[in-house]
Amino acid sequence: MKIFDMNFNRRLEDQLEFIIEIDKAKNILRKTKLFDGNRFENDAEHSWTICIMALLLREYSNFSVNIEKVIIMLLLHDIVEIDAGDTFLYFKDKDNVHDKERKAAERIFGLLENDQKEYFINIWNEFEEKETNEAKFAVVFDRLEPMLQNYINEGYTWKKHNITYDMVIENNQHIKNGSKEIWEFALKLLDKAVEKGYLTK
Amino acid sequence: MKIFDMNFNRRLEDQLEFIIEIDKAKNILRKTKLFDGNRFENDAEHSWTICIMALLLREYSNFSVNIEKVIIMLLLHDIVEIDAGDTFLYFKDKDNVHDKERKAAERIFGLLENDQKEYFINIWNEFEEKETNEAKFAVVFDRLEPMLQNYINEGYTWKKHNITYDMVIENNQHIKNGSKEIWEFALKLLDKAVEKGYLTK
Repeated sequence: MKIFDMNFNRRLEDQLEFIIEIDKAKNILRKTKLFDGNRFENDAEHSWTICIMALLLREYSNFSVNIEKVIIMLLLHDIVEIDAGDTFLYFKDKDNVHDKERKAAERIFGLLENDQKEYFINIWNEFEEKETNEAKFAVVFDRLEPMLQNYINEGYTWKKHNITYDMVIENNQHIKNGSKEIWEFALKLLDKAVEKGYLTK
Repeated sequence: MKIFDMNFNRRLEDQLEFIIEIDKAKNILRKTKLFDGNRFENDAEHSWTICIMALLLREYSNFSVNIEKVIIMLLLHDIVEIDAGDTFLYFKDKDNVHDKERKAAERIFGLLENDQKEYFINIWNEFEEKETNEAKFAVVFDRLEPMLQNYINEGYTWKKHNITYDMVIENNQHIKNGSKEIWEFALKLLDKAVEKGYLTK
């Protein structure tokens, strides 16, 4: 059943129903807590933060990027988790997850007419493939935010899931492809995390 | 005291401390509930939704807009509420609120070096003044989202605060300046809200 039924502009009404559907991202909880440590972060909040990070830190990109596209990718990147759920970065069965996410993208972006469905799915795919400059730069922040959250929260998620220093290094190499400067900072942060006992080496 | 002290790149470390400061927006609750009605929405979630609305609905703008700038405005527009609190649209003492928000902008964006502080304050001011095409279009979504939330939640906030149809019309005229098409839709939605008993005329 349609939520809006004004006999006015069916395309606009479908677009607004898409907006209502994606509100479910606000109930998808991530594995890391807010910087104040009080509760888990949800996907919508996470997306907001990393959009601002990308905007603020664009000067550290390894190459020039179209920041509009980077931000659009980050706004949309986790919408698929409404169906597929949040996947922990250190979870192994990535093929199965990607398959679920692809189906989710079809269903959710499929609420829109074809022109916008294709535009959104293409942007989401581009982010997932991490090949273009924009995707490489966008992924920096998807990885950096949880690292900062873990540092500030004394290694909460790392400790809870027995994540070691080597695992963090191995799984966050993508940062380097987007920003060497931020990767260098991340290495120093991880060293300090080990020194403070937040992360085991 | 500085949170990050890596002796690596002080500018970057200050930028990340700004990111941690603005996380407080996730604890600023608005007057309207999520579309599922389960809890109040916070400022970060609200910003995420209206960025996507602007992107999705750009075709209805009264004029051509730089969508990158519109989205940046919407990402940043409520950060001042970390100090100034959320102001209900129908609250009267707007001068006092604006004064508090100006001070908040100075303090919070002032955590950044001058170049970025000025850039962010200018963008925030542009949004507040509602004079440029980008600001006029951005404000459409800041107003439309709570209207949709109220409609879906059977007039929850309208009823709770005794907001009438005339008050909604009077306080949301800005939508028309950004998008005549969306304003026409809003009028139909409000008529239907009255018909269903969510809003009194």
